[in-house]
Amino acid sequence: MIRFDSDYIEGCHPKILEALAKTNMEQTPGYGKDKHCAHARELIREACNAPDADIHFLVGGTQTNTTVIAAILRPWEGVIAADTGHINCHETGAIESTGHKVLPLPHANGKLTAEQIEKCVYALRHDGNYEHIVQPGMVYISQPTEYGTMYSKTELQAISEVCRAAGLPLFLDGARLGYGLAADGTLSLPDYAELCDVFYIGGTKVGFLFGEAVVITNDALKKDFRNMIKQRGGMLAKGRLLGIQYEVMFENGLYLEVSRNAVAQARKIRAALLEMGIPLAYDSPTNQLFPILTRAQYAELGKTFELGAWDISGGEADIFRICTSWATTEANADALIAAIRTL
Amino acid sequence: MIRFDSDYIEGCHPKILEALAKTNMEQTPGYGKDKHCAHARELIREACNAPDADIHFLVGGTQTNTTVIAAILRPWEGVIAADTGHINCHETGAIESTGHKVLPLPHANGKLTAEQIEKCVYALRHDGNYEHIVQPGMVYISQPTEYGTMYSKTELQAISEVCRAAGLPLFLDGARLGYGLAADGTLSLPDYAELCDVFYIGGTKVGFLFGEAVVITNDALKKDFRNMIKQRGGMLAKGRLLGIQYEVMFENGLYLEVSRNAVAQARKIRAALLEMGIPLAYDSPTNQLFPILTRAQYAELGKTFELGAWDISGGEADIFRICTSWATTEANADALIAAIRTL
Amino acid sequence: MIRFDSDYIEGCHPKILEALAKTNMEQTPGYGKDKHCAHARELIREACNAPDADIHFLVGGTQTNTTVIAAILRPWEGVIAADTGHINCHETGAIESTGHKVLPLPHANGKLTAEQIEKCVYALRHDGNYEHIVQPGMVYISQPTEYGTMYSKTELQAISEVCRAAGLPLFLDGARLGYGLAADGTLSLPDYAELCDVFYIGGTKVGFLFGEAVVITNDALKKDFRNMIKQRGGMLAKGRLLGIQYEVMFENGLYLEVSRNAVAQARKIRAALLEMGIPLAYDSPTNQLFPILTRAQYAELGKTFELGAWDISGGEADIFRICTSWATTEANADALIAAIRTL
Amino acid sequence: MIRFDSDYIEGCHPKILEALAKTNMEQTPGYGKDKHCAHARELIREACNAPDADIHFLVGGTQTNTTVIAAILRPWEGVIAADTGHINCHETGAIESTGHKVLPLPHANGKLTAEQIEKCVYALRHDGNYEHIVQPGMVYISQPTEYGTMYSKTELQAISEVCRAAGLPLFLDGARLGYGLAADGTLSLPDYAELCDVFYIGGTKVGFLFGEAVVITNDALKKDFRNMIKQRGGMLAKGRLLGIQYEVMFENGLYLEVSRNAVAQARKIRAALLEMGIPLAYDSPTNQLFPILTRAQYAELGKTFELGAWDISGGEADIFRICTSWATTEANADALIAAIRTL
Repeated sequence: MIRFDSDYIEGCHPKILEALAKTNMEQTPGYGKDKHCAHARELIREACNAPDADIHFLVGGTQTNTTVIAAILRPWEGVIAADTGHINCHETGAIESTGHKVLPLPHANGKLTAEQIEKCVYALRHDGNYEHIVQPGMVYISQPTEYGTMYSKTELQAISEVCRAAGLPLFLDGARLGYGLAADGTLSLPDYAELCDVFYIGGTKVGFLFGEAVVITNDALKKDFRNMIKQRGGMLAKGRLLGIQYEVMFENGLYLEVSRNAVAQARKIRAALLEMGIPLAYDSPTNQLFPILTRAQYAELGKTFELGAWDISGGEADIFRICTSWATTEANADALIAAIRTL
Repeated sequence: MIRFDSDYIEGCHPKILEALAKTNMEQTPGYGKDKHCAHARELIREACNAPDADIHFLVGGTQTNTTVIAAILRPWEGVIAADTGHINCHETGAIESTGHKVLPLPHANGKLTAEQIEKCVYALRHDGNYEHIVQPGMVYISQPTEYGTMYSKTELQAISEVCRAAGLPLFLDGARLGYGLAADGTLSLPDYAELCDVFYIGGTKVGFLFGEAVVITNDALKKDFRNMIKQRGGMLAKGRLLGIQYEVMFENGLYLEVSRNAVAQARKIRAALLEMGIPLAYDSPTNQLFPILTRAQYAELGKTFELGAWDISGGEADIFRICTSWATTEANADALIAAIRTL
Repeated sequence: MIRFDSDYIEGCHPKILEALAKTNMEQTPGYGKDKHCAHARELIREACNAPDADIHFLVGGTQTNTTVIAAILRPWEGVIAADTGHINCHETGAIESTGHKVLPLPHANGKLTAEQIEKCVYALRHDGNYEHIVQPGMVYISQPTEYGTMYSKTELQAISEVCRAAGLPLFLDGARLGYGLAADGTLSLPDYAELCDVFYIGGTKVGFLFGEAVVITNDALKKDFRNMIKQRGGMLAKGRLLGIQYEVMFENGLYLEVSRNAVAQARKIRAALLEMGIPLAYDSPTNQLFPILTRAQYAELGKTFELGAWDISGGEADIFRICTSWATTEANADALIAAIRTL
Repeated sequence: MIRFDSDYIEGCHPKILEALAKTNMEQTPGYGKDKHCAHARELIREACNAPDADIHFLVGGTQTNTTVIAAILRPWEGVIAADTGHINCHETGAIESTGHKVLPLPHANGKLTAEQIEKCVYALRHDGNYEHIVQPGMVYISQPTEYGTMYSKTELQAISEVCRAAGLPLFLDGARLGYGLAADGTLSLPDYAELCDVFYIGGTKVGFLFGEAVVITNDALKKDFRNMIKQRGGMLAKGRLLGIQYEVMFENGLYLEVSRNAVAQARKIRAALLEMGIPLAYDSPTNQLFPILTRAQYAELGKTFELGAWDISGGEADIFRICTSWATTEANADALIAAIRTL
C-alpha cells in the first residue's frame, strides 16, 4: 500500500537526521536554552523580518493551540473560530479543558470572513445579556485551513484590520504553513508576522520529526510565555532537538523547498482528478485534495492506495482526502495519477 | 410600569418571609446540616416518591448546572444539550470554565428528541477520530425549556431510555419546574425522579428568594457531592435559609399552587394575543409567552408594560417575552390583556 | 444548648427582615441592576471614601475568594497566602479548581509579615528555575484572620507597600471585617480602600442573611468583573436582596453597631477566661476566642454550650473556638461567663 | 566545560539514531497506531510481566504527570505527594492548572512513608470539616526520588498496601526509573507493575531523545486514556518515534545496560567525594549526587565542570547536584574524580 492519507506518515527530511546525528553528543543546557535554539530563533526572526518577535518551540499542534489560547484569554472570554477549525473539532476539547469556550462561526470552504468576525464581535458586545454570554477574547484561523484552502492576502489583511479595530489578538494556526507559502507566493512570512499577533510555523507536517515554532509579535502577549509552555507540558527537556530541526529547515530555504514538492505533486494529482471528471468537495491549492469518489472508484483506488476517509455518508459517493507532503515521491504521485486515469 | 419581563422581579411568597421571621433567632448549625434542611429533604423525597434520593440545596441555576455537570463528567467528556440550552447560551461559559465542552444539537422549539441524542452518541462513539473528539458524558435538558415548551411524558421517557441504553446520566434543569408541573398534569415529580438521574426543583423563579433543590436518584452520582458544592462556592453558610423555603413550599403543596397562578395568567394572556392575531414564535403552555410584535404594537404596549426583548432583529417585527409568575396579580394580567385588545 | 460555635448560627438582624418585607412586592430588574443595589453601592463608596471604586455583591465567602482570585491571576501564577488562610485550608481546593496554586507561607498567629512576602517574591522571581515554578500573581490576607487576630495599621501599610513595589495586587478577605472595624479603631474602611487593591466587606457573618460586598479600587481589576461573577455562579437573580441588606446595614452605621456588640461580648468572655487562668492559643481582639480547655473543663462547659472544636489533638487539652456575633445576647454571654467561673 | 548538571544534556543513544534512520521512510499511521508502538508495547508488557497492562507513550514528564493525575482524580480531590515531589515544586503548577491541589507531606530524603500516608488519609477523611477540605484521591511518589534516593522493596510494598487499603491509586513517577533499576537489584519492573496502579518508565533522562512509557495495570484507570492524552496535547502525530525508541531500548536489555553505566560512574564519583571528606546532603545510590561544597571547592571545580546549583543559601557552603547519565564517559568521570581529589 502507498499511503496518501496524511502528511505525517514518514519520519523526517534526511538532513534533519544528519544534523541530529552530527550534534548528538554535544552537551547543551536543556529547555531550549541552548545555542541551536538561539540560532534557530535568529533564523526565524530574519525569515519573518521581525527582529523583535519572541520565538518559542513546541512539540505539536494541539499543545501549541492550547498553550497560546490559554495564555491570551481572560477566564470569561472565548476564542472565535470557524466551525471547521481544528480547535473546535479535533482536539478532544483541549481548549475547553483550559476553561474557554470556542465560539464557532459557519465556515465557507474552511474560512471565515472579516465581515463575519466583525458582526459577531459587535453582536456579542452589544447583546443585552453581555454579562451572561461568552465575550470574544481573540480570533483563531488556520492557514492553510483544515480544508486545504487559503486566505488570500487581501482576506487576511481585512481580518487583521477587523481584529485590531476590535482589540482582539489574531492567532494563525500554521500547522501546514509551509504548504501555504509554497502555494501562494503573494503571502510571505513577513506578511504573517505583520498581520497576526501570534502564529506558528508548523514542522510536524512539513518534514520535521515534530515541532511547531510560535512567533509572537504582539508585545502584550510575550510575558512569561515560557512559564505557560512549561505548565502545559510543552517544554521539551532536550529542547535543542527543536532548535536543530528549525536550523536545518531555515538555514538554506529548505522549509520552502520541501513544501514546494508537496504542492507540485498535489497539483498534478488534482489535474488528473479533474480530467477524469471527479469533483472536488473544496478546491485546495495546497497539499490536501478532497475528491468525491463513488464506491466503485474508491474500491479500485483502495487496492493500492491508502486515502483518508474524510466525510463518509454511507451513500453512493463520499469525500476522501489525498495528502501529499515533503516526502511524496514523483514515482508514488505518478502511480496514483495512473490509477486515477483508469477510473 | 408593570413588569412582565421575567419571573424574578419580585421578592418571595409572603409565607416564606413569615417563616424566615419566625425562625430568625433559632440557633442552628451551618452548611445545610440543620433541622429545617433535614425536614425539607424529607418533604422532597416524599413528593418525589424517592426515599433514597439525595437532596442538596443550592442558591442559583448557573451554580447548580455547573456543579452537577462538573461532578459527573470525566475530563475529556462533554455534555449534550440543545443549542438553545441555558448552559450553552447564557451562563458566560460556566460549563467550559470547568473544562468541558457543551455539545450542542439543533433544537426544535427548545427541545431535543431521543432520536437526535441516539444518533449523536452513535456518531461520536463510532467516529474514526474517536480519541480526537469530545465524547459525550451526559445529557442536559431543560423542563420547561428556555422557550417555555415542555417535553411530554412520552418524549421524556424516550430520552431517558436512550440515555440509559447509552450509559449517559440524564440531567434535567428544572429552574422553572413548578410551572411545568402546573402546565402538564401527566408529568409528576415521581416521574422526573424515575426518568432522570439528577434534576432540580427550581425555587428562584417560583416564588423563593432564591434556591434550587437538586435531586440525585442515581447512586453512582451521590458520593461527595457536598464537597463539590463547597468547592464551587455553592454551600450557603446559613444553609437553613434554603431548607426553610423548601419547607414552606412543600409542606402544603404551595409550590404547585403558586405555579398554577402563573400558568393560569399566562393562558389568559396567550388567548388574548391569539385573539388579536398576534403570532407566537413558539407556543408555550407554561409561564413564558413569545409574541411577535410589530414596532407599533411594541411601542404601544411598552408605554405601560416592561416586556423582555427576546430576539430583536431590527426589522418590522421582533420576538418579545412575556413572563408571568407566582406573583402575577389578576389585576396586572387583566391590564395587559386590555392593552393587547387595543392593538 | 446555647451555641457559641460560629458566627452564622442565627438568621439576620431584624431590620433586614423588615426591609425585605417592606420591599417584597416591588418589581425590579434582576442581577443587581436595581435601585437598591445602586443605592447600596453609593453608601459603600461613601463609607470607604472611594468614589471611583467598583462595588459588587456576592453571596458567600468561598465564592467571593474564588471569583476575585481567578479574575486577577494569569494561568501560570499563584496566590501568596498564610498557610492558615481560608483559601488554603477550608475551601475544598476552590482556588486550585480555577487552575491556580496557593503559595502558602508560615503564619504567625494567622498573619503574614511584609518582610515574609517580600522575601518570598524575591526568591520566586530570582529562582534559577523561574519558568518551572509558580510565580506569584497576588497576595491574599484575611482581616481579621482565621485566628481572630488583626493586622495593625502599620503592618497593613507595610504589606501594601511591598505588594505595590512588587506589582502584586493585594486582596483582603473581610468575611469578618465588621468585627475588625469594631476591634481596632485605627483602621477604617477608607484605610482598607486605600491600602488594598480589592477587599470585601463581609455580611454573612455580621448579621446578614448572606452577602459579601467586593470593593475594587484598582482600575486594572475592574473590567468585566460582572462576567466573571456570572460565570462562577455568583450572580444572584434577585440581586436586590443583597442591595437591600447593605442598604440597611450602611444607612445608619448599623454594620459597625452590630459588630461592636460581638466584640464587647467577646471581651467580657475573654476576661473571664483569663481570670480563670485558661490560656488562649492566640490572643484575639475580635469576636473569636481560642481557649485551651482541659477535658474536664470542656466536659463541664459542653453540658450547656456548644463550642467549636478547633484543634483536637486527643491529648489532655485541646483548642476550642468561642464565637460571639451581632446576635449574642448579654444574657447568653453572661451565662457562659458564669459557667467559666465555675471551672 | 564538561557538564554534569543534568541527565538530559546530550542527544540519545546512537542505536536510537540508527533505528530512526533505518525506519525513516517507512509509511505508518499516526498517533501511536503503528507497528513499532505495538511491538514496543509488547516488549514492555513482557518486561513488566503484565500481559494485561495498557501501555501509552508520551513525550515528557510534566505532560505525563499531568495527564495521569487529571485522568484519575475527581474534581474535589487532590494528590498526596512529598513536598519535594516534582509535581509540587517544578512543574509551574501544572497539576493545579488541571484543577487539583497537591497535598504535600514532609519528605525524609525525598521520600514518604506508608505510615505518613496512612495517617494523612485518616486525618483528612475524619476531619470535622470533611467537605471543606481537599480529600485525597491518589498518591504520587517518585522512584528514584528527586533527591536520587530509592524506596526499598519493603517500603514500596508498605505504601502499596496502605494505598490499596484506602482505595487510593498509587502512581509512581519513573522519570529516572532506569537508574533506579540499575541501583537496586531487588526491585524489578514486574514489582513496579504489581505494586503500583500506574507508573512510567522514563526515557528522556535515560538515553532517549524524549519519551515516557506509562504502564497502567489497574483496569479502572484504563478507559479512554488516549482521549486524555490527546486533550492534554501529549499525542505525538508521528507516534512511531516513541515506539521505535522503546523498541531499541527494550529489545536487548539496552535500557538497563545504559542505566548501569550512569550508576557505575556515579558510584566512583561518590567514593571520591567521601574520600575527600565532602559531605553529601542526601546519600543517593543512583545517578544523582548532592555534595555540599564550600565556596572554594566550587570555585575550583567550576573552572572545568558545570555542576547543578541545587540549594544555594549564600552561605559558606551550598548543595550542588552532580548527574551522571547513560552518556557519561569513563574519561569525563575520571576527570571529575581527579579534580575532586585535588580539593
